[in-house]
Amino acid sequence: MDVGEPLVPAATVARLPLYLRSLEQLGEDDVATVSSSRLAELAGVNAAKLRKDLSHLGSYGTRGVGYQVPNLAAQIRYELGLDEVSPVVVIGLGNLGQALANHAGFGDRGFPIVALVDVDPAKVGTRIGSMTVAHLDDLARIVTAHDVQTAIIATPVGAAQAVCDQAIEAGIVSVLNFAPTVLQVPEGVALRPVDLALELQILTYYRPRVGRRDENVRLLG
Amino acid sequence: MDVGEPLVPAATVARLPLYLRSLEQLGEDDVATVSSSRLAELAGVNAAKLRKDLSHLGSYGTRGVGYQVPNLAAQIRYELGLDEVSPVVVIGLGNLGQALANHAGFGDRGFPIVALVDVDPAKVGTRIGSMTVAHLDDLARIVTAHDVQTAIIATPVGAAQAVCDQAIEAGIVSVLNFAPTVLQVPEGVALRPVDLALELQILTYYRPRVGRRDENVRLLG
Repeated sequence: MDVGEPLVPAATVARLPLYLRSLEQLGEDDVATVSSSRLAELAGVNAAKLRKDLSHLGSYGTRGVGYQVPNLAAQIRYELGLDEVSPVVVIGLGNLGQALANHAGFGDRGFPIVALVDVDPAKVGTRIGSMTVAHLDDLARIVTAHDVQTAIIATPVGAAQAVCDQAIEAGIVSVLNFAPTVLQVPEGVALRPVDLALELQILTYYRPRVGRRDENVRLLG
Repeated sequence: MDVGEPLVPAATVARLPLYLRSLEQLGEDDVATVSSSRLAELAGVNAAKLRKDLSHLGSYGTRGVGYQVPNLAAQIRYELGLDEVSPVVVIGLGNLGQALANHAGFGDRGFPIVALVDVDPAKVGTRIGSMTVAHLDDLARIVTAHDVQTAIIATPVGAAQAVCDQAIEAGIVSVLNFAPTVLQVPEGVALRPVDLALELQILTYYRPRVGRRDENVRLLG
Protein backbone atom coordinates (compact mmCIF):
# COMPACT_ATOMS: atom_id res chain seq x y z
CA MET A 1 0.00 0.00 0.00
CA ASP A 2 1.14 3.52 -0.79
CA VAL A 3 1.98 4.86 2.67
CA GLY A 4 1.27 8.44 1.65
CA GLU A 5 -2.33 7.59 0.69
CA PRO A 6 -4.35 6.11 3.54
CA LEU A 7 -7.36 4.00 2.67
CA VAL A 8 -10.73 5.68 2.97
CA PRO A 9 -12.95 4.01 5.63
CA ALA A 10 -15.31 1.38 4.21
CA ALA A 11 -18.42 3.22 5.43
CA THR A 12 -17.22 6.35 3.62
CA VAL A 13 -16.53 4.39 0.42
CA ALA A 14 -20.08 3.04 0.60
CA ARG A 15 -21.48 6.59 0.77
CA LEU A 16 -19.33 8.16 -1.98
CA PRO A 17 -21.58 6.79 -4.76
CA LEU A 18 -24.59 8.42 -3.04
CA TYR A 19 -22.82 11.79 -3.14
CA LEU A 20 -21.76 11.20 -6.72
CA ARG A 21 -25.30 10.36 -7.81
CA SER A 22 -26.60 13.57 -6.22
CA LEU A 23 -23.78 15.64 -7.74
CA GLU A 24 -24.54 14.20 -11.17
CA GLN A 25 -28.21 15.13 -10.78
CA LEU A 26 -27.15 18.69 -9.81
CA GLY A 27 -24.78 18.80 -12.79
CA GLU A 28 -27.62 17.87 -15.12
CA ASP A 29 -29.52 20.87 -13.75
CA ASP A 30 -26.45 23.10 -14.39
CA VAL A 31 -25.94 23.75 -10.70
CA ALA A 32 -22.29 24.90 -10.23
CA THR A 33 -21.91 24.85 -6.43
CA VAL A 34 -23.68 23.10 -3.58
CA SER A 35 -23.55 23.52 0.20
CA SER A 36 -22.66 20.54 2.34
CA SER A 37 -26.09 20.64 3.98
CA ARG A 38 -27.91 20.62 0.64
CA LEU A 39 -25.75 17.84 -0.77
CA ALA A 40 -26.23 15.86 2.44
CA GLU A 41 -29.99 16.26 2.17
CA LEU A 42 -30.00 15.09 -1.45
CA ALA A 43 -27.90 12.06 -0.54
CA GLY A 44 -29.96 11.23 2.55
CA VAL A 45 -27.00 11.54 4.93
CA ASN A 46 -26.41 13.96 7.79
CA ALA A 47 -24.30 16.98 6.94
CA ALA A 48 -21.57 16.43 9.55
CA LYS A 49 -21.03 12.89 8.25
CA LEU A 50 -20.81 14.17 4.67
CA ARG A 51 -18.19 16.79 5.59
CA LYS A 52 -16.18 14.13 7.45
CA ASP A 53 -16.46 11.75 4.49
CA LEU A 54 -15.32 14.35 1.97
CA SER A 55 -12.46 15.42 4.22
CA HIS A 56 -11.01 11.92 3.68
CA LEU A 57 -10.72 12.93 0.03
CA GLY A 58 -9.10 16.22 0.97
CA SER A 59 -12.26 18.12 -0.05
CA TYR A 60 -13.37 20.75 2.42
CA GLY A 61 -15.43 23.08 0.20
CA THR A 62 -15.31 26.86 0.53
CA ARG A 63 -17.04 28.59 3.44
CA GLY A 64 -20.18 30.37 2.23
CA VAL A 65 -19.90 28.80 -1.23
CA GLY A 66 -19.80 25.05 -0.69
CA TYR A 67 -18.41 22.53 -3.10
CA GLN A 68 -17.79 22.94 -6.83
CA VAL A 69 -20.21 20.39 -8.32
CA PRO A 70 -18.19 19.23 -11.36
CA ASN A 71 -14.88 19.18 -9.49
CA LEU A 72 -16.19 17.19 -6.56
CA ALA A 73 -17.95 14.75 -8.90
CA ALA A 74 -14.70 14.24 -10.83
CA GLN A 75 -12.77 13.73 -7.60
CA ILE A 76 -15.19 11.11 -6.30
CA ARG A 77 -15.18 9.37 -9.68
CA TYR A 78 -11.38 9.28 -9.54
CA GLU A 79 -11.34 8.06 -5.95
CA LEU A 80 -13.77 5.23 -6.74
CA GLY A 81 -11.90 4.35 -9.91
CA LEU A 82 -14.88 5.36 -12.06
CA ASP A 83 -12.83 7.57 -14.35
CA GLU A 84 -12.60 4.57 -16.64
CA VAL A 85 -15.40 2.50 -18.12
CA SER A 86 -15.55 -0.97 -16.52
CA PRO A 87 -17.05 -3.61 -18.77
CA VAL A 88 -19.00 -6.30 -16.92
CA VAL A 89 -19.97 -9.90 -17.65
CA VAL A 90 -23.16 -11.41 -16.17
CA ILE A 91 -22.85 -15.10 -15.29
CA GLY A 92 -26.11 -17.00 -14.84
CA LEU A 93 -29.10 -15.93 -16.93
CA GLY A 94 -32.03 -16.97 -14.75
CA ASN A 95 -34.70 -14.38 -13.97
CA LEU A 96 -32.37 -12.24 -11.94
CA GLY A 97 -29.48 -12.49 -14.41
CA GLN A 98 -31.81 -11.51 -17.24
CA ALA A 99 -33.08 -8.53 -15.29
CA LEU A 100 -29.51 -7.46 -14.55
CA ALA A 101 -28.57 -7.94 -18.21
CA ASN A 102 -31.42 -5.61 -19.21
CA HIS A 103 -30.90 -3.10 -16.39
CA ALA A 104 -30.24 0.23 -18.10
CA GLY A 105 -28.70 1.73 -14.95
CA PHE A 106 -25.37 -0.08 -15.29
CA GLY A 107 -24.20 1.27 -18.65
CA ASP A 108 -25.26 4.81 -17.72
CA ARG A 109 -23.05 4.65 -14.64
CA GLY A 110 -19.90 3.36 -16.35
CA PHE A 111 -20.54 -0.40 -16.15
CA PRO A 112 -21.63 -1.56 -19.60
CA ILE A 113 -22.60 -5.21 -19.66
CA VAL A 114 -20.59 -6.58 -22.57
CA ALA A 115 -21.19 -10.32 -22.26
CA LEU A 116 -23.64 -12.87 -20.87
CA VAL A 117 -22.56 -16.35 -19.87
CA ASP A 118 -24.39 -19.51 -18.79
CA VAL A 119 -23.91 -23.28 -18.93
CA ASP A 120 -27.49 -24.25 -19.74
CA PRO A 121 -27.72 -25.51 -23.37
CA ALA A 122 -31.25 -24.03 -23.48
CA LYS A 123 -29.80 -20.58 -22.82
CA VAL A 124 -26.43 -20.58 -24.60
CA GLY A 125 -26.87 -19.08 -28.08
CA THR A 126 -30.14 -17.29 -27.26
CA ARG A 127 -30.37 -13.50 -27.40
CA ILE A 128 -31.15 -11.24 -24.43
CA GLY A 129 -31.51 -7.62 -25.43
CA SER A 130 -28.74 -7.02 -27.95
CA MET A 131 -26.45 -9.80 -26.70
CA THR A 132 -26.09 -13.51 -27.34
CA VAL A 133 -25.52 -15.77 -24.34
CA ALA A 134 -22.09 -17.42 -24.50
CA HIS A 135 -20.92 -20.59 -22.75
CA LEU A 136 -19.02 -20.31 -19.48
CA ASP A 137 -16.15 -22.17 -21.12
CA ASP A 138 -15.67 -19.15 -23.42
CA LEU A 139 -15.20 -16.80 -20.48
CA ALA A 140 -11.38 -16.57 -20.66
CA ARG A 141 -11.61 -15.55 -24.32
CA ILE A 142 -14.35 -13.00 -23.55
CA VAL A 143 -12.42 -11.52 -20.63
CA THR A 144 -9.41 -10.96 -22.86
CA ALA A 145 -11.35 -9.70 -25.89
CA HIS A 146 -13.38 -7.12 -23.94
CA ASP A 147 -10.85 -6.38 -21.19
CA VAL A 148 -13.45 -7.40 -18.59
CA GLN A 149 -12.39 -7.25 -14.95
CA THR A 150 -15.79 -7.51 -13.27
CA ALA A 151 -18.29 -10.37 -13.13
CA ILE A 152 -21.80 -10.37 -11.72
CA ILE A 153 -22.63 -13.86 -10.46
CA ALA A 154 -26.36 -14.62 -10.57
CA THR A 155 -26.25 -18.42 -10.63
CA PRO A 156 -28.05 -20.79 -8.26
CA VAL A 157 -26.34 -21.21 -4.87
CA GLY A 158 -24.98 -24.66 -5.66
CA ALA A 159 -23.08 -23.48 -8.73
CA ALA A 160 -21.79 -20.15 -7.43
CA GLN A 161 -18.42 -21.16 -5.94
CA ALA A 162 -17.35 -23.24 -8.95
CA VAL A 163 -18.42 -20.46 -11.31
CA CYS A 164 -16.56 -17.90 -9.21
CA ASP A 165 -13.39 -20.03 -9.30
CA GLN A 166 -13.68 -20.40 -13.07
CA ALA A 167 -14.24 -16.65 -13.50
CA ILE A 168 -11.15 -15.81 -11.44
CA GLU A 169 -9.11 -18.31 -13.42
CA ALA A 170 -10.36 -16.57 -16.57
CA GLY A 171 -8.95 -13.26 -15.30
CA ILE A 172 -11.85 -11.68 -13.36
CA VAL A 173 -10.59 -9.64 -10.37
CA SER A 174 -13.83 -8.13 -9.13
CA VAL A 175 -17.00 -10.11 -8.28
CA LEU A 176 -20.48 -8.89 -7.39
CA ASN A 177 -22.26 -11.94 -6.01
CA PHE A 178 -26.06 -12.22 -6.03
CA ALA A 179 -26.13 -15.91 -5.07
CA PRO A 180 -27.14 -16.09 -1.40
CA THR A 181 -24.02 -17.87 -0.20
CA VAL A 182 -20.60 -16.77 1.04
CA LEU A 183 -17.97 -17.18 -1.69
CA GLN A 184 -14.29 -17.71 -1.06
CA VAL A 185 -11.90 -15.72 -3.24
CA PRO A 186 -8.10 -15.54 -3.23
CA GLU A 187 -6.16 -12.46 -2.11
CA GLY A 188 -6.20 -9.78 -4.75
CA VAL A 189 -9.80 -10.37 -5.82
CA ALA A 190 -12.49 -7.91 -4.70
CA LEU A 191 -15.78 -9.49 -3.68
CA ARG A 192 -19.05 -7.86 -2.71
CA PRO A 193 -22.13 -9.88 -1.83
CA VAL A 194 -25.68 -8.70 -2.58
CA ASP A 195 -28.25 -10.92 -0.89
CA LEU A 196 -31.72 -9.66 -1.67
CA ALA A 197 -33.54 -11.61 1.06
CA LEU A 198 -30.92 -10.41 3.51
CA GLU A 199 -31.81 -6.83 2.62
CA LEU A 200 -35.40 -7.62 3.60
CA GLN A 201 -34.22 -9.21 6.85
CA ILE A 202 -32.23 -6.09 7.78
CA LEU A 203 -35.21 -3.92 6.87
CA THR A 204 -37.47 -6.00 9.10
CA TYR A 205 -35.38 -5.12 12.12
CA TYR A 206 -36.17 -1.46 11.60
CA ARG A 207 -39.87 -1.96 10.95
CA PRO A 208 -42.06 -0.55 13.70
CA ARG A 209 -43.04 -3.46 15.97
CA VAL A 210 -45.85 -3.00 18.42
CA GLY A 211 -45.10 -4.34 21.87
CA ARG A 212 -41.45 -5.09 21.24
CA ARG A 213 -39.87 -1.74 20.60
CA ASP A 214 -41.39 1.67 20.41
CA GLU A 215 -39.30 2.60 17.42
CA ASN A 216 -39.77 5.38 14.97
CA VAL A 217 -36.89 4.66 12.72
CA ARG A 218 -35.88 5.71 9.28
CA LEU A 219 -32.90 3.96 7.81
CA LEU A 220 -31.04 5.61 4.99
CA GLY A 221 -28.02 3.75 3.71
CA MET B 1 -37.79 3.35 23.08
CA ASP B 2 -37.75 0.66 25.76
CA VAL B 3 -34.96 1.91 28.00
CA GLY B 4 -34.12 -1.59 29.19
CA GLU B 5 -33.40 -2.75 25.63
CA PRO B 6 -30.73 -0.75 23.84
CA LEU B 7 -30.73 -0.75 20.05
CA VAL B 8 -28.23 -3.01 18.37
CA PRO B 9 -25.67 -1.08 16.24
CA ALA B 10 -26.64 -0.82 12.58
CA ALA B 11 -23.48 -2.62 11.42
CA THR B 12 -24.31 -5.52 13.74
CA VAL B 13 -27.90 -5.66 12.48
CA ALA B 14 -26.56 -5.86 8.93
CA ARG B 15 -24.41 -8.89 9.88
CA LEU B 16 -27.05 -10.83 11.87
CA PRO B 17 -28.66 -12.23 8.69
CA LEU B 18 -25.23 -13.56 7.62
CA TYR B 19 -24.90 -15.44 10.91
CA LEU B 20 -28.47 -16.68 10.63
CA ARG B 21 -27.92 -17.98 7.11
CA SER B 22 -24.83 -19.91 8.25
CA LEU B 23 -26.64 -21.26 11.33
CA GLU B 24 -29.52 -22.46 9.17
CA GLN B 25 -27.08 -24.27 6.87
CA LEU B 26 -25.49 -25.92 9.94
CA GLY B 27 -28.96 -26.83 11.23
CA GLU B 28 -29.78 -28.54 7.95
CA ASP B 29 -26.64 -30.63 8.43
CA ASP B 30 -27.80 -31.51 11.99
CA VAL B 31 -24.88 -29.68 13.59
CA ALA B 32 -25.85 -28.92 17.22
CA THR B 33 -23.06 -26.58 18.34
CA VAL B 34 -20.60 -24.31 16.57
CA SER B 35 -17.53 -22.41 17.72
CA SER B 36 -17.38 -18.66 17.20
CA SER B 37 -14.39 -19.05 14.89
CA ARG B 38 -16.15 -21.64 12.70
CA LEU B 39 -19.35 -19.60 12.53
CA ALA B 40 -17.32 -16.48 11.72
CA GLU B 41 -15.56 -18.32 8.92
CA LEU B 42 -18.86 -19.54 7.46
CA ALA B 43 -20.30 -16.04 7.60
CA GLY B 44 -17.17 -14.39 6.16
CA VAL B 45 -16.60 -12.18 9.22
CA ASN B 46 -13.73 -12.10 11.66
CA ALA B 47 -14.29 -14.02 14.89
CA ALA B 48 -13.76 -11.12 17.29
CA LYS B 49 -16.36 -9.08 15.43
CA LEU B 50 -18.82 -11.98 15.55
CA ARG B 51 -18.38 -12.40 19.31
CA LYS B 52 -18.89 -8.65 19.81
CA ASP B 53 -21.99 -8.70 17.60
CA LEU B 54 -23.55 -11.63 19.42
CA SER B 55 -22.76 -10.08 22.79
CA HIS B 56 -25.21 -7.29 21.83
CA LEU B 57 -27.85 -10.03 21.84
CA GLY B 58 -26.65 -11.31 25.20
CA SER B 59 -25.22 -14.44 23.55
CA TYR B 60 -21.74 -15.36 24.71
CA GLY B 61 -21.63 -19.09 23.91
CA THR B 62 -20.01 -21.64 26.22
CA ARG B 63 -16.23 -21.88 26.47
CA GLY B 64 -14.99 -25.04 24.74
CA VAL B 65 -18.45 -25.76 23.31
CA GLY B 66 -19.48 -22.66 21.39
CA TYR B 67 -23.00 -21.67 20.51
CA GLN B 68 -26.08 -23.90 20.43
CA VAL B 69 -27.03 -23.76 16.73
CA PRO B 70 -30.85 -23.92 17.01
CA ASN B 71 -31.01 -21.60 20.03
CA LEU B 72 -28.81 -18.93 18.50
CA ALA B 73 -30.71 -19.12 15.20
CA ALA B 74 -34.00 -18.66 17.06
CA GLN B 75 -32.60 -15.74 19.00
CA ILE B 76 -31.36 -13.96 15.87
CA ARG B 77 -34.68 -14.61 14.16
CA TYR B 78 -36.47 -13.09 17.16
CA GLU B 79 -34.11 -10.12 17.27
CA LEU B 80 -34.61 -9.37 13.57
CA GLY B 81 -38.36 -9.86 13.84
CA LEU B 82 -38.22 -12.91 11.59
CA ASP B 83 -40.23 -15.10 13.96
CA GLU B 84 -43.28 -14.10 11.91
CA VAL B 85 -43.85 -14.42 8.19
CA SER B 86 -43.79 -11.01 6.45
CA PRO B 87 -45.82 -10.89 3.27
CA VAL B 88 -44.38 -8.58 0.61
CA VAL B 89 -45.82 -6.69 -2.36
CA VAL B 90 -43.66 -5.91 -5.41
CA ILE B 91 -44.47 -2.58 -7.06
CA GLY B 92 -43.24 -2.12 -10.63
CA LEU B 93 -43.04 -5.17 -12.86
CA GLY B 94 -40.29 -4.25 -15.29
CA ASN B 95 -37.42 -6.69 -15.77
CA LEU B 96 -36.15 -6.28 -12.24
CA GLY B 97 -39.60 -6.42 -10.65
CA GLN B 98 -40.36 -9.60 -12.57
CA ALA B 99 -37.10 -11.16 -11.46
CA LEU B 100 -37.84 -10.23 -7.86
CA ALA B 101 -41.38 -11.61 -8.20
CA ASN B 102 -39.93 -14.92 -9.37
CA HIS B 103 -37.02 -15.00 -6.91
CA ALA B 104 -37.49 -18.19 -4.88
CA GLY B 105 -35.19 -16.95 -2.12
CA PHE B 106 -37.72 -14.58 -0.56
CA GLY B 107 -40.46 -17.05 0.38
CA ASP B 108 -37.90 -19.52 1.73
CA ARG B 109 -36.60 -16.85 4.09
CA GLY B 110 -39.95 -15.69 5.48
CA PHE B 111 -40.86 -13.06 2.90
CA PRO B 112 -43.50 -14.57 0.63
CA ILE B 113 -44.43 -12.27 -2.23
CA VAL B 114 -48.21 -12.15 -2.07
CA ALA B 115 -49.05 -9.44 -4.59
CA LEU B 116 -47.69 -7.68 -7.68
CA VAL B 117 -48.70 -4.14 -8.56
CA ASP B 118 -48.12 -1.87 -11.55
CA VAL B 119 -49.86 1.01 -13.33
CA ASP B 120 -49.12 -0.04 -16.93
CA PRO B 121 -52.36 -1.25 -18.61
CA ALA B 122 -50.20 -3.69 -20.61
CA LYS B 123 -49.10 -5.35 -17.35
CA VAL B 124 -52.15 -5.12 -15.08
CA GLY B 125 -54.14 -8.35 -15.36
CA THR B 126 -51.26 -10.42 -16.76
CA ARG B 127 -49.85 -13.38 -14.82
CA ILE B 128 -46.28 -13.64 -13.51
CA GLY B 129 -45.58 -17.01 -11.95
CA SER B 130 -48.71 -17.87 -9.97
CA MET B 131 -49.84 -14.26 -9.45
CA THR B 132 -51.88 -11.76 -11.42
CA VAL B 133 -50.60 -8.19 -11.59
CA ALA B 134 -53.01 -5.79 -9.82
CA HIS B 135 -53.34 -2.04 -10.30
CA LEU B 136 -51.58 0.31 -7.90
CA ASP B 137 -54.95 1.80 -7.04
CA ASP B 138 -55.90 -1.55 -5.46
CA LEU B 139 -52.93 -1.45 -3.10
CA ALA B 140 -54.84 -0.32 0.01
CA ARG B 141 -57.25 -3.23 -0.40
CA ILE B 142 -54.36 -5.68 -0.96
CA VAL B 143 -52.44 -4.42 2.05
CA THR B 144 -55.48 -4.97 4.27
CA ALA B 145 -56.48 -8.32 2.77
CA HIS B 146 -52.99 -9.88 3.05
CA ASP B 147 -51.75 -7.95 6.09
CA VAL B 148 -48.81 -6.67 4.02
CA GLN B 149 -46.38 -4.33 5.76
CA THR B 150 -43.49 -4.44 3.30
CA ALA B 151 -43.22 -3.17 -0.28
CA ILE B 152 -40.41 -3.65 -2.77
CA ILE B 153 -40.28 -0.67 -5.12
CA ALA B 154 -38.85 -1.54 -8.53
CA THR B 155 -40.33 1.27 -10.62
CA PRO B 156 -38.46 3.71 -12.86
CA VAL B 157 -36.74 6.55 -10.98
CA GLY B 158 -39.31 9.15 -12.04
CA ALA B 159 -42.24 7.24 -10.53
CA ALA B 160 -40.60 6.01 -7.34
CA GLN B 161 -41.44 8.83 -4.90
CA ALA B 162 -45.11 9.06 -5.89
CA VAL B 163 -45.43 5.27 -5.70
CA CYS B 164 -43.73 5.26 -2.31
CA ASP B 165 -46.11 7.94 -1.01
CA GLN B 166 -49.10 5.98 -2.27
CA ALA B 167 -47.80 2.76 -0.70
CA ILE B 168 -47.36 4.43 2.68
CA GLU B 169 -50.84 5.90 2.43
CA ALA B 170 -52.09 2.37 1.73
CA GLY B 171 -50.55 1.17 4.99
CA ILE B 172 -47.01 0.05 4.04
CA VAL B 173 -44.50 0.69 6.86
CA SER B 174 -41.39 -0.92 5.41
CA VAL B 175 -39.91 -0.13 1.98
CA LEU B 176 -37.06 -1.82 0.10
CA ASN B 177 -36.23 0.56 -2.73
CA PHE B 178 -34.51 -0.63 -5.92
CA ALA B 179 -35.09 2.61 -7.86
CA PRO B 180 -31.73 4.44 -7.94
CA THR B 181 -32.94 7.59 -6.22
CA VAL B 182 -33.22 8.75 -2.60
CA LEU B 183 -36.81 8.45 -1.35
CA GLN B 184 -38.28 10.55 1.43
CA VAL B 185 -40.46 8.74 3.95
CA PRO B 186 -42.21 10.00 7.10
CA GLU B 187 -41.12 9.08 10.62
CA GLY B 188 -42.24 5.59 11.52
CA VAL B 189 -41.54 4.11 8.08
CA ALA B 190 -38.45 1.94 7.58
CA LEU B 191 -36.62 2.47 4.30
CA ARG B 192 -33.69 0.60 2.85
CA PRO B 193 -32.23 1.46 -0.55
CA VAL B 194 -30.66 -1.13 -2.86
CA ASP B 195 -28.88 0.51 -5.77
CA LEU B 196 -27.34 -2.13 -7.99
CA ALA B 197 -25.01 0.18 -9.93
CA LEU B 198 -23.88 1.65 -6.62
CA GLU B 199 -22.84 -1.83 -5.49
CA LEU B 200 -20.62 -2.00 -8.58
CA GLN B 201 -19.20 1.45 -7.81
CA ILE B 202 -18.29 0.41 -4.27
CA LEU B 203 -16.78 -2.80 -5.59
CA THR B 204 -14.66 -0.85 -8.07
CA TYR B 205 -12.96 1.02 -5.24
CA TYR B 206 -11.64 -2.28 -3.90
CA ARG B 207 -10.54 -3.66 -7.25
CA PRO B 208 -6.78 -3.93 -7.59
CA ARG B 209 -5.58 -0.88 -9.51
CA VAL B 210 -2.11 -0.87 -10.91
CA GLY B 211 -0.22 2.35 -10.32
CA ARG B 212 -2.78 3.89 -8.02
CA ARG B 213 -2.86 1.63 -5.01
CA ASP B 214 -1.00 -1.55 -4.33
CA GLU B 215 -4.03 -3.17 -2.81
CA ASN B 216 -4.75 -6.78 -2.17
CA VAL B 217 -8.19 -6.44 -0.74
CA ARG B 218 -11.06 -8.76 -0.16
CA LEU B 219 -14.30 -7.18 0.93
CA LEU B 220 -16.87 -9.35 2.63
CA GLY B 221 -20.03 -7.53 3.70
